[in-house]
Amino acid sequence: VTTVDFYFDYVSPYAYFAWLRIGELCAARGALLRAHPVLFAALLDHWGQRGPAEVPPRRAWVFRDGARYAARHGVPLAWPAAHPFNPLLALRLSLPGPEQHRVIAAIYRAGWARGGDLGSPETLRGALDDAGLDGASRLAAAATPEAKQALRDETDAAIGRGVFGVPTMIAGDELFWGNDRLDDLAAHLDGQDPLDPHREQLREVMARPRAADRRVVR
Amino acid sequence: VTTVDFYFDYVSPYAYFAWLRIGELCAARGALLRAHPVLFAALLDHWGQRGPAEVPPRRAWVFRDGARYAARHGVPLAWPAAHPFNPLLALRLSLPGPEQHRVIAAIYRAGWARGGDLGSPETLRGALDDAGLDGASRLAAAATPEAKQALRDETDAAIGRGVFGVPTMIAGDELFWGNDRLDDLAAHLDGQDPLDPHREQLREVMARPRAADRRVVR
Repeated sequence: VTTVDFYFDYVSPYAYFAWLRIGELCAARGALLRAHPVLFAALLDHWGQRGPAEVPPRRAWVFRDGARYAARHGVPLAWPAAHPFNPLLALRLSLPGPEQHRVIAAIYRAGWARGGDLGSPETLRGALDDAGLDGASRLAAAATPEAKQALRDETDAAIGRGVFGVPTMIAGDELFWGNDRLDDLAAHLDGQDPLDPHREQLREVMARPRAADRRVVR
Repeated sequence: VTTVDFYFDYVSPYAYFAWLRIGELCAARGALLRAHPVLFAALLDHWGQRGPAEVPPRRAWVFRDGARYAARHGVPLAWPAAHPFNPLLALRLSLPGPEQHRVIAAIYRAGWARGGDLGSPETLRGALDDAGLDGASRLAAAATPEAKQALRDETDAAIGRGVFGVPTMIAGDELFWGNDRLDDLAAHLDGQDPLDPHREQLREVMARPRAADRRVVR
């Protein structure tokens, strides 16, 4: 059975959009979906990148682009009440375990579809309770040192696999970055990856010299 | 007449792909295409971002993703002989002026379609000569202080309009980032931008508070 690892953080609208498609995309191909909450801010720190919300015109772009995608695809999009927000509790609630996919769906719905504050424990508990997922006990479990460590471990494991953004999907060893690339993931799972005939040429190209590197000035 | 401003740097494969479509896309809609060479590295410096080539797994992703796009769309893609390369001379050759679009097409073909070194003056002169564009006199003009200043001015003007990456297309005041968004640009030019009914809601959403900001640690 092919496994698809799905790396996400609730701060990203693109991860939300991808979540709405990834389950059916995998199920239709008999692929096993494994969801991995990761702290996007830690990925950015690790790779020395700024996030979209940290570059003003890029933040404005993401809002426009997300709204355009939602309108075009009929996706409910209210945006979380504040953005960016602290996603740590929401992520710890979403670690692998019983009913994980239902938990993630409930949290996404509360924030991105309905405009709740995903940094708020009350919002998160309510979202889980509404879905019959016992918010109180899950919030207690998410506050333990074990849950905190598990999220750090998920994030470190993602970095170890070369994840630099969200959403990222990894099928076998093939990494796909971005909601825009779900169709490429589907083609890959279908054995119709247009890259396959070009992998040898690509290895040769990537082994060529770098002729210029920017002096990083900040 | 609607004007479409196209911001590009030769280092980006996505700007190459967009260049191959943007001329016809604009012409079919009676829009005036204005091409603006900009130094991507200076955009990155200004906004404090790292470029794709500076994050190893993201660099590998861009190569795979670009090869996949080219294979899917039948686009010739040999990659320039070295990458990244110093694009300054190629950009200065591509400033607004007589035959600008033919110059750009010739340089793209030499590097991205045929694998030439776009950091090499000889390659650039040959590419222009082959297209009947008098490489020698154009290279002389590109070496003047005026040309150097003109490229700086183009780059500063792009930053002033909120350009943070390449390719960027601006139609009127509407900014589109990325080759993936040419279809959105086309819809916008056609008066069918799915964002239009949502602009008021978006203004409200963007005015909401930020609830968390990452301490930038490097």
